[in-house]
Amino acid sequence: MTAQHDAKRRAILEAAAEVFMRHGFEAGTTKEVAAEVGLSQPAIYHYVGSKIDLLREIALEVDRDMMAALENGLRSSDNPADQLRGVIREYTAGVVRDLRAFAVFWQEIRSLQPEIREKIRNDEREFVARVARLVTALQRQGRLPEGPPTIVAQAIMSMPSWMYHWYQPGGALDVDAISEIYCSLIGLKES
Amino acid sequence: MTAQHDAKRRAILEAAAEVFMRHGFEAGTTKEVAAEVGLSQPAIYHYVGSKIDLLREIALEVDRDMMAALENGLRSSDNPADQLRGVIREYTAGVVRDLRAFAVFWQEIRSLQPEIREKIRNDEREFVARVARLVTALQRQGRLPEGPPTIVAQAIMSMPSWMYHWYQPGGALDVDAISEIYCSLIGLKES
Repeated sequence: MTAQHDAKRRAILEAAAEVFMRHGFEAGTTKEVAAEVGLSQPAIYHYVGSKIDLLREIALEVDRDMMAALENGLRSSDNPADQLRGVIREYTAGVVRDLRAFAVFWQEIRSLQPEIREKIRNDEREFVARVARLVTALQRQGRLPEGPPTIVAQAIMSMPSWMYHWYQPGGALDVDAISEIYCSLIGLKES
Repeated sequence: MTAQHDAKRRAILEAAAEVFMRHGFEAGTTKEVAAEVGLSQPAIYHYVGSKIDLLREIALEVDRDMMAALENGLRSSDNPADQLRGVIREYTAGVVRDLRAFAVFWQEIRSLQPEIREKIRNDEREFVARVARLVTALQRQGRLPEGPPTIVAQAIMSMPSWMYHWYQPGGALDVDAISEIYCSLIGLKES
């Protein structure tokens, strides 16, 4: 793919996320996506494909973002507290960076092809399982409260995930300040 | 409304939440709702109304649940820590009790009539504002970390809200144990 081709694809996927967020996947049309991005419908088909392809590409991009946030967070340190802080920071940044895509991702999982849905569910399970391992390590150190590590992991990751619902871009706090609040709230201060 | 009428309405709304969660509001039909609850389509119209009425009634019920959880939590004590614990406990219980309705509520807000959407947005803003007041009081006592109270409130309420996405009924932990984990995680232990 050339850089220009890639830029067109990105613009189309952003427009599709906007349209699907506004009207939902069922009611949204490629005609609206074309109007939103200022391209023709054949151009949409050429660069990405049909409506379901648009949704699949949005979902796969969000899925890659999530898994990259996990990997980058885990790689950022070799002690569990800083790793968990890293995952929270990277994941918060990812959600904010692609807010509309994340909103569509969570709201339209059921509209995806079964094999894509399955891949996403598996990746999400892996994400939670690996955060749960950090939780277990931090519980042993007495730095996180008792409780099934998977539930504690879900509770922690709720904070960035749920931002797709309430976060307004351009607010007073930058994304690092927000993820710092999440970390402080669960007692993981900067070390 | 008689008790029997009320029971029929509830059964219909539960079936509608199931259908809308499975296929989305756009793609779901009153025919499927009728089949799900074992009634005729005219009965659906008689007891609740058209498809948009089903969605509106689900949303208004969730909205009432949310606001009742807030009121009950606030009324449960006169110190801010126990009030916040109360709101978390009541809201977690509400989400788990009507998991499918909450899922439809969060996923289909855009499909509601504008005046209903507006009412829900206002109620949600009030919910967050009143939790933010508890947060401010707890920050003054040094029991919650610094940061804009609205963002801290959103972060805390994310934990129950996001359960609509991951919680599987019938798990090993009961709902009180889960809300206790949320409270411990943010350092609000039972007093």
